[in-house]
Amino acid sequence: MDNPDLIALSVVGDGEAETGPLEGSWKGISFLNPARDGAVLPILHLNGAKIAGPTVLARKDPAEVRSLLEGHGYDVIEVEGSDLPGMHERFAEALTEAYTKIRAIWAKARGSEGGSAATDPASGEVEWSPTGRPRWPLIVLRSPKGWTGPHEVDGTVVEGTWRAHQVPLSGVKDNPEHLALLESWLRSYRPEELFDDSGAPTPLVTANNPEGDLRLSATPHANGGVLTEDLDLPDIATLETPVESPATSRAESTRVLGELMKQLYERNPHSFRLFCPDETNSNRLGAVFDVSERMTMERVVPEDVKLSSDGRVMEVLSEHNCHGWLEGYTLTGRHGLFATYEAFAMVSASQTIQHAKWLEEAAHLDWRAKVPSLNILLTSTAWRNDHNGFSHQGPGLITTMIQHRGDVARVYLPPDANCLLSVSEHCFKSRSHVNLIVIDKQPQLQYLTLDEANAHCRAGAGVWDWAGNELPGQDPDIVLGCAGDVVTMETVAAAQILRERLPELSVRVVNVVNLMTLSRPKDHPNGMSDMAFEELFTNNKDVIFSFHGYPGAIHQLVHGRSDADRFHVRGFIEQGTTTTPFDMVVRNQASRYHLVMDALNNSKRHPRGSAALKAWCQSQLDRHEVYIREHLEDLPEVRDWIAQEPGSEVSGKSGKA
Amino acid sequence: MDNPDLIALSVVGDGEAETGPLEGSWKGISFLNPARDGAVLPILHLNGAKIAGPTVLARKDPAEVRSLLEGHGYDVIEVEGSDLPGMHERFAEALTEAYTKIRAIWAKARGSEGGSAATDPASGEVEWSPTGRPRWPLIVLRSPKGWTGPHEVDGTVVEGTWRAHQVPLSGVKDNPEHLALLESWLRSYRPEELFDDSGAPTPLVTANNPEGDLRLSATPHANGGVLTEDLDLPDIATLETPVESPATSRAESTRVLGELMKQLYERNPHSFRLFCPDETNSNRLGAVFDVSERMTMERVVPEDVKLSSDGRVMEVLSEHNCHGWLEGYTLTGRHGLFATYEAFAMVSASQTIQHAKWLEEAAHLDWRAKVPSLNILLTSTAWRNDHNGFSHQGPGLITTMIQHRGDVARVYLPPDANCLLSVSEHCFKSRSHVNLIVIDKQPQLQYLTLDEANAHCRAGAGVWDWAGNELPGQDPDIVLGCAGDVVTMETVAAAQILRERLPELSVRVVNVVNLMTLSRPKDHPNGMSDMAFEELFTNNKDVIFSFHGYPGAIHQLVHGRSDADRFHVRGFIEQGTTTTPFDMVVRNQASRYHLVMDALNNSKRHPRGSAALKAWCQSQLDRHEVYIREHLEDLPEVRDWIAQEPGSEVSGKSGKA
Repeated sequence: MDNPDLIALSVVGDGEAETGPLEGSWKGISFLNPARDGAVLPILHLNGAKIAGPTVLARKDPAEVRSLLEGHGYDVIEVEGSDLPGMHERFAEALTEAYTKIRAIWAKARGSEGGSAATDPASGEVEWSPTGRPRWPLIVLRSPKGWTGPHEVDGTVVEGTWRAHQVPLSGVKDNPEHLALLESWLRSYRPEELFDDSGAPTPLVTANNPEGDLRLSATPHANGGVLTEDLDLPDIATLETPVESPATSRAESTRVLGELMKQLYERNPHSFRLFCPDETNSNRLGAVFDVSERMTMERVVPEDVKLSSDGRVMEVLSEHNCHGWLEGYTLTGRHGLFATYEAFAMVSASQTIQHAKWLEEAAHLDWRAKVPSLNILLTSTAWRNDHNGFSHQGPGLITTMIQHRGDVARVYLPPDANCLLSVSEHCFKSRSHVNLIVIDKQPQLQYLTLDEANAHCRAGAGVWDWAGNELPGQDPDIVLGCAGDVVTMETVAAAQILRERLPELSVRVVNVVNLMTLSRPKDHPNGMSDMAFEELFTNNKDVIFSFHGYPGAIHQLVHGRSDADRFHVRGFIEQGTTTTPFDMVVRNQASRYHLVMDALNNSKRHPRGSAALKAWCQSQLDRHEVYIREHLEDLPEVRDWIAQEPGSEVSGKSGKA
Repeated sequence: MDNPDLIALSVVGDGEAETGPLEGSWKGISFLNPARDGAVLPILHLNGAKIAGPTVLARKDPAEVRSLLEGHGYDVIEVEGSDLPGMHERFAEALTEAYTKIRAIWAKARGSEGGSAATDPASGEVEWSPTGRPRWPLIVLRSPKGWTGPHEVDGTVVEGTWRAHQVPLSGVKDNPEHLALLESWLRSYRPEELFDDSGAPTPLVTANNPEGDLRLSATPHANGGVLTEDLDLPDIATLETPVESPATSRAESTRVLGELMKQLYERNPHSFRLFCPDETNSNRLGAVFDVSERMTMERVVPEDVKLSSDGRVMEVLSEHNCHGWLEGYTLTGRHGLFATYEAFAMVSASQTIQHAKWLEEAAHLDWRAKVPSLNILLTSTAWRNDHNGFSHQGPGLITTMIQHRGDVARVYLPPDANCLLSVSEHCFKSRSHVNLIVIDKQPQLQYLTLDEANAHCRAGAGVWDWAGNELPGQDPDIVLGCAGDVVTMETVAAAQILRERLPELSVRVVNVVNLMTLSRPKDHPNGMSDMAFEELFTNNKDVIFSFHGYPGAIHQLVHGRSDADRFHVRGFIEQGTTTTPFDMVVRNQASRYHLVMDALNNSKRHPRGSAALKAWCQSQLDRHEVYIREHLEDLPEVRDWIAQEPGSEVSGKSGKA
């Protein structure tokens, strides 16, 4: 994509582990525009065996394999045999044929505007599918596994079987026969022609080496960081969501990310793409369609909306495909975002893990330039999939990612639109990270102006003075911590209940945007110092921490902090179903009423009225239960809840800064 | 599989999320033996659109789609249109054609031994691929999305487009035009013929209903628990690994599981299968090949070993396939095990999660009978993938699973062969759990006799008196906890170092087999009471806990126990690479020397010699570093380490029970 003169060779073996993902990526042919996008030449190497047996594809009828690949849309070129030099010659011919066809496809698609490609001789015959897509060449190479290795060992055939997969000859130190076989095998490469007396490669070898950037080890396309250019980012101030007073207005926060990406598409026409499993509009990111369209190379009909071969919004309903595309796009120096329903991010978790491992290792190699980060937006989250139910409720990728070492894994939980804007700008500028951004798409309370959001996100976590009522110079009785949009609303609401109904209890609210700041500095580069941590959470007061994901994630992160046992974490405890939004937090014991009861239960001090307030909370939960069964929606006071303006509270004891 | 008279209809939409996994499952055609296995009839419903746009398959050239499906090996039957009743009639004909072909395939494959199937008229024409596999029928059904729904709304076409995916008509309460459209749509079903005046279905409806078990809601094949029969299990005492003295002999523990499964194959010829991504031998489970073979319906050649269409060992190099097969096999009442490299279990983590969620929900439905558990063997683990390197090192599935609620998730970390035997027997008897069994395949120390192992595994965790030296009636100075084979060896070795070199420090060793016992009873049914927990771990002594997986998993599980901060956990902290086995534990700071230093650093008491011992540990680590760089293998004293026999220790202060 976006590399018009580049042909990527994609060589894949015939083990099912290799061809499985390839079946997914073969869909890619429907998303590759020859007028602008470069090309891929897949080479399926059918050598017949994997670690302990034959492969499925190698044992199927070859006509079926051909039909399968043609069905995927390819023009299949087959090379088969074990004769030498015939195989080399035929494979070279196949490569030439494929190359010629690719050039011809480019020339045909690009016409006179195709630049150098248009001047191509275009001698290859090329076919177009009736739906408007070229049939790109694909090579099937059938050669024996372990070809030219020992044919038979101890009377058993090795060449062409799974026995050639790992160690075809064992015990050569003690077995003279095996040693002789090894010698004859290695001598078959005629080392005397390849190396001189000092062991250096002869001119026969070196004369055929490419030079400079054409060396495989030096091509910038395999070290995409050197090709990376910073994104041209707009001034995010133009996208600010107005916030007059915290928690008093609602907005669909992810819409601002859509607006930001719209501008990224405009400003970076060849180096930014959004990848999304058919959910761009559903996730409120549809502003990108103002400036680009969904991409397809297949048939388009008049009823279609925002769909064309010129589109650069990559929608395919496969998390594997979207993830893989973004990986490749960033590894070759371009920028993007993979937006997915939170629960289905686990579909590609294994890819996320392996990419993180790759980035971790790459960071130790000086010659590897940093690449754009893999940005993953987790939206349509557990807490607001109340209509889809339990299968759509699963914040597991956060827990999966925080276990990674080093500088790679970042988890951001912006509570509102301006924080999302601030975090997104940071992620789009960052390099070689895996950034998870977790925020829901439904209308949600807004807390901070952009200036406040920028300061808050830079710090990663902070006290929200306006939400608490602590007295200057004294530690609060209890700290309410939160990370994540829905649980932040419950926390702010819980703090208000406490302020209004038990003003003598002193409460602090701490919001965490950058989850990794909770780590110790020795565990993560974003980790807060103990001093900063205790400035937020004190060193001995109980903390009721309300978390977007599984509670265990917080227990892991705060381990090792002063008296970590004082952290009482609420979060998603797999109490999922189809119900109302507020019932989701009730079922998971993370509602405002639960948080108030937790605060009362864990405060060392119990001002008069504590027991009555606890009873009131329970009665509110009972009311909720009755109401939603009758009305199938939440109580109006919950559904429409916004924070009280300062000063409107019954008691004036609030210690606002 | 193993249901010779059953045809399963598999209906799949054309969204990429549906057809993606299906592409994997289409490989299943190479693993289905018509002589014994029943059949699947896939129906690909190409209605053209998903949530926000067209599907890839629907917009590809129909000839390509046909070629693709024929390439997978099917005999494609196509039904297309929107005419009525023509579509109903043609679809009925297609079903009849497919059914007839399946019966004909069965008859041909089963010959005179095929029982009822052999007497089938076999009138359908059936084709066999040249590799020996029938071309099973597959139906492609092309009908408009939203067919018979409102064709156009507000001047925009809905029928046949993605707009019909969710809510084709909105605002019917306020929009009279939309209400009229809704009425006309619903009246098109002629409700007056379907319901009587009281709203009950008329005989026209009820007369066509199947009865008894033929009702979809009542078929036992969709409620496999009612068909489930207990496995016929052998007496595991016959498979005991002799252990004369703990930690003094080595064995490849997973071999006993292979022997156990060999007997399961023999005793349960139609209800047990092993599913494995081409690693049965690699994982030391090869004993099953004494009694069964790898399954294939494709071409078999003379060089093949243990491969035939009669085989019931399911090897395909795809975790997705293996997991899905086992899910289906257990849901229809049969038993099995999915054995995989630990790191690659994350490939199918999303399937594991969704299956666990399904089991959790099913447990709340009285009419759903419990099904055999989904047993997953995680072997070739992080600690012993020292030759494969970082990509093969990832114990993430444990952390993913412990977050699940209720009774479903179980994680077992047997430290040796007899514990594995005990745990496996339990898992094969269990119902409706997801059992993770984590143990490596390499030669490892053996600790317990089978009687001891059975008692230990029943308890789930216990003190290993022989490994420690605590004095009767007194709490130890430090507790060394462990869960997992390699880390248990390091812990036992650390305890021996402490016993030998600092006998005045009192040490207890606690081994945990059933990880969920660490939970509180309110969090998991296997959770230990606080009393039991404190009997093992005391209520205030520091615990150096050495864990197979990510340390955070233990921090999560022990949260809420008395002074949980005293748990200092070592585990896999993503320090992976290609190195020596012992270097893996050194890099992750979980070696015996690290554990000794942790014990010394955290003990409240420091007997004379503590500082010197700490220095010695550091010097051992330095020696290790130098040695492996020179010799590319571990120090002999580490490589060949076994426990000292009791009484042979320098100091006689050991307080063994």
